[in-house]
Amino acid sequence: MAAALARAGVETRGFDLSASLIEAAASDGVLAAKSLRDAIEGADVAITMLQSGDQTLAVWREIAPQARGELLIDCSTIDVESASAAHHLAQESGALSVDAPVSGGVAGARAATLTFMCGGAEEALAAAKPILEHMGAHVLHCGGAGMGQAAKICNNLMLGVTMIATAEAFVLAEKLGLSHRALFEAASISSGQSWSLTSYCPVPEMTPASPANHDYKPGFMTALMLKDLRLAQEAAARAGAASPLGAAATQLYALHESAGQGGADFSSIIRLIRGE
Amino acid sequence: MAAALARAGVETRGFDLSASLIEAAASDGVLAAKSLRDAIEGADVAITMLQSGDQTLAVWREIAPQARGELLIDCSTIDVESASAAHHLAQESGALSVDAPVSGGVAGARAATLTFMCGGAEEALAAAKPILEHMGAHVLHCGGAGMGQAAKICNNLMLGVTMIATAEAFVLAEKLGLSHRALFEAASISSGQSWSLTSYCPVPEMTPASPANHDYKPGFMTALMLKDLRLAQEAAARAGAASPLGAAATQLYALHESAGQGGADFSSIIRLIRGE
Amino acid sequence: MAAALARAGVETRGFDLSASLIEAAASDGVLAAKSLRDAIEGADVAITMLQSGDQTLAVWREIAPQARGELLIDCSTIDVESASAAHHLAQESGALSVDAPVSGGVAGARAATLTFMCGGAEEALAAAKPILEHMGAHVLHCGGAGMGQAAKICNNLMLGVTMIATAEAFVLAEKLGLSHRALFEAASISSGQSWSLTSYCPVPEMTPASPANHDYKPGFMTALMLKDLRLAQEAAARAGAASPLGAAATQLYALHESAGQGGADFSSIIRLIRGE
Amino acid sequence: MAAALARAGVETRGFDLSASLIEAAASDGVLAAKSLRDAIEGADVAITMLQSGDQTLAVWREIAPQARGELLIDCSTIDVESASAAHHLAQESGALSVDAPVSGGVAGARAATLTFMCGGAEEALAAAKPILEHMGAHVLHCGGAGMGQAAKICNNLMLGVTMIATAEAFVLAEKLGLSHRALFEAASISSGQSWSLTSYCPVPEMTPASPANHDYKPGFMTALMLKDLRLAQEAAARAGAASPLGAAATQLYALHESAGQGGADFSSIIRLIRGE
Repeated sequence: MAAALARAGVETRGFDLSASLIEAAASDGVLAAKSLRDAIEGADVAITMLQSGDQTLAVWREIAPQARGELLIDCSTIDVESASAAHHLAQESGALSVDAPVSGGVAGARAATLTFMCGGAEEALAAAKPILEHMGAHVLHCGGAGMGQAAKICNNLMLGVTMIATAEAFVLAEKLGLSHRALFEAASISSGQSWSLTSYCPVPEMTPASPANHDYKPGFMTALMLKDLRLAQEAAARAGAASPLGAAATQLYALHESAGQGGADFSSIIRLIRGE
Repeated sequence: MAAALARAGVETRGFDLSASLIEAAASDGVLAAKSLRDAIEGADVAITMLQSGDQTLAVWREIAPQARGELLIDCSTIDVESASAAHHLAQESGALSVDAPVSGGVAGARAATLTFMCGGAEEALAAAKPILEHMGAHVLHCGGAGMGQAAKICNNLMLGVTMIATAEAFVLAEKLGLSHRALFEAASISSGQSWSLTSYCPVPEMTPASPANHDYKPGFMTALMLKDLRLAQEAAARAGAASPLGAAATQLYALHESAGQGGADFSSIIRLIRGE
Repeated sequence: MAAALARAGVETRGFDLSASLIEAAASDGVLAAKSLRDAIEGADVAITMLQSGDQTLAVWREIAPQARGELLIDCSTIDVESASAAHHLAQESGALSVDAPVSGGVAGARAATLTFMCGGAEEALAAAKPILEHMGAHVLHCGGAGMGQAAKICNNLMLGVTMIATAEAFVLAEKLGLSHRALFEAASISSGQSWSLTSYCPVPEMTPASPANHDYKPGFMTALMLKDLRLAQEAAARAGAASPLGAAATQLYALHESAGQGGADFSSIIRLIRGE
Repeated sequence: MAAALARAGVETRGFDLSASLIEAAASDGVLAAKSLRDAIEGADVAITMLQSGDQTLAVWREIAPQARGELLIDCSTIDVESASAAHHLAQESGALSVDAPVSGGVAGARAATLTFMCGGAEEALAAAKPILEHMGAHVLHCGGAGMGQAAKICNNLMLGVTMIATAEAFVLAEKLGLSHRALFEAASISSGQSWSLTSYCPVPEMTPASPANHDYKPGFMTALMLKDLRLAQEAAARAGAASPLGAAATQLYALHESAGQGGADFSSIIRLIRGE
């Protein structure tokens, strides 16, 4: 994502705790910063991409006080409560803020075809949009603070469940003697269609971008899908919403991870269903 | 479906145990037959559309002996084993046969945009195709005897699960303060996309053909979705396939039916998730 | 079971399709019969123990006509419909009949501590009771024809689910640093108590009769538990009953069997939960 | 519980945010304190019973500094992490501490037959035991800090799942024509036995203490079971444990609560299964 910004002619500084990632970004034209402070010094916009709500809050606590009048964008997928707290930190410093989690995976990031699901005030969105459009194909305003995160976890709830349903259908087809190709062609133009089937099919040779074509090299790892489904389940529990298939899907990915498949693409869940 | 045939200029006779259905068809140009025997007397092609494998077998046992050299098409959604047995009856009588269950619902039947998922020999398919094309937009050859049924239940397994996931996502969105519209727009162009979301959305005012727009008037009834999911579960049990989310979805539709919603469109499952 | 009868001084003839089983029984004092016909020739009581409803019906069709005035007992665990059909065959031949599936496993059979759950007329039960009491500790009259089978599948539905819950609790305890012993002792005298915990614990060294003590050597195989849970699910589907945890448990045993554990004791499901 | 202490001759002061609860306790001989500070002033032992980890931590933060050398006991059912943090607070103040969640419900509290599942150092347990024995029948030392909570949520995970399995079995029995009594008697002495069946049966007239006998007046409310199952699910997610039936049960109680049954006893889940 930083490389896409740099390619677009935006002066971009990058910092990460891993030196090798900073180096890799540098080879894509991203200026290497020596510290978090160095990275945001004098910047108009700060973009964070981290692994948990706690990490986002820790970093924003550090950068928000320096960020008067500027724009803070968090592209992490985190819980809605932490996202709201992060907006609050920005507001206290007089900074604009957007939660902008991303859909589209590593391939989308490379091709700059990501979708950003954004939450925040109109003014913040207006400021963020031209920046985000350098990195993605779609920038959607989903609502106020935290609503980007809400859209993301609702999206991934559907994705995580639907992928398993698709895997179950292909395993059943195998046992009944129905070819992958026949099921794929019939369901693609019927009511069983989904992105999981027609863009990311869990069996090989159906769709060009499927990790199934490369032995489930991710793509989007089982461990990350599990993290997102757990965010959805926690949000549902806190909000008093029932999510029975989301819960069942979470458990199947948890079993799959326990069986050592956390690093494989999440569509490898078909191996669990098959008993491999 | 019979009306579509008649409209296409095919001489069509219709018979049903319900006199009012024969009358309704007659007003669409379908000739009213007095009996099953009367309906198929001298016909080149016989098409059956019934509710269970037992019914299909009972009717085919009666008509197959009359059907030497002709073509028998069963458009019912039934179990794969009964479909194979029906093909066998046809073969014994020297008739061609096709299992051709349908996807697309009542609306698809009216608009002749159905998809037929077909199983049978090449020769039988070649004979059936021009007939079926009067009634639907797609006629797919999925494989040998019974493979149309196999494709249909695999499709509906994906559909039944994905609809519930979609409902769960909208209920979670409601509780988090994310609007239906925002979730719909974000997920429609993202990895959470499915036919359940973008063609048959379980909340109103998102997609034109959704039963949600008309208080869940079917469409495709909960009781029928439950029947198809049970066919999928039975096929999976017999074949030794695991189908955990299919099983969980089956149970949720069963709870919904037990709560008196068997006659509502299956997308009304969102009411169960909401606790209505 | 035949050995227990012979030990009790009842003249007992045995027949099976496997010659080695007949031999084994012979070493326990059971007279080896050469055929089914030979086994029941002149007998007052015929007892069958088979693997499916179809097998019971096939055998009873053969023996019922010879059985005027006698007593037929089926100790198989089969579906309620087949059990009813078997009673009907007996009735047509003027024979008394009892469905008497068994709970207690191989260990219970050896120790003659089995429980028989019986369905049939009072008169048939009165005749069957003294015979069954040679083989088991409890002979229960559960109701009319088929009600023994109904009680058995309802019992095993509870058992199959509760065993997995017990396994989940022990795996969670392991991850939280709570010892097996501490959980066992606390739950044994609390509301989490069950036969699965206090008589057949899925972790070793808690209860003397647990297959867990012997690397999950059965006992009661995963494949048989799966069969019984599928009988329960089919009965529930036919009767219009929801059974969501029964369905979920069925799928977990199906995953476990697909992973090659069909021959291990069903309490080995803890391996699936652990990700082994 | 406070009343039981007072009855045992222990000088007991009580405080709650609800004045009516203080009054009720006063009528049982508990001295009414005016504030938290007043309640623990000069006390040798402080016992807290609250609704969440946050509440326990808030109260312990207030009382721990006053509690040098004394004993703090928390009888709340809370998450393992908060329990550990509470022990840490006590340790910093030089106080002994025990987490001692309770099993047995309101009825057990009245009859002083509760089970306390305790975590903490040997010395703390030795000090807590005589106090807790005034209020309950069993005081179990489950391990170090937090292990009482761990035992409690593992116990309630088994309980919550097993109750639903029991409800499913009775609903299936109803549909098959098997009487409640026959299933109860057969399963009570068989492998389907559990505390849910033989001490707290979800259908009326089987066990004396069942809320089912009084239209599901609690007892132990659905909302509280849901809370405990969510604690178990969160602990499992954090610890990386799979708990598929725990997750499914959580969702069923969530659906039941959404349908307005949060205040009924949790064994009323049979109504959801029945479609009432």
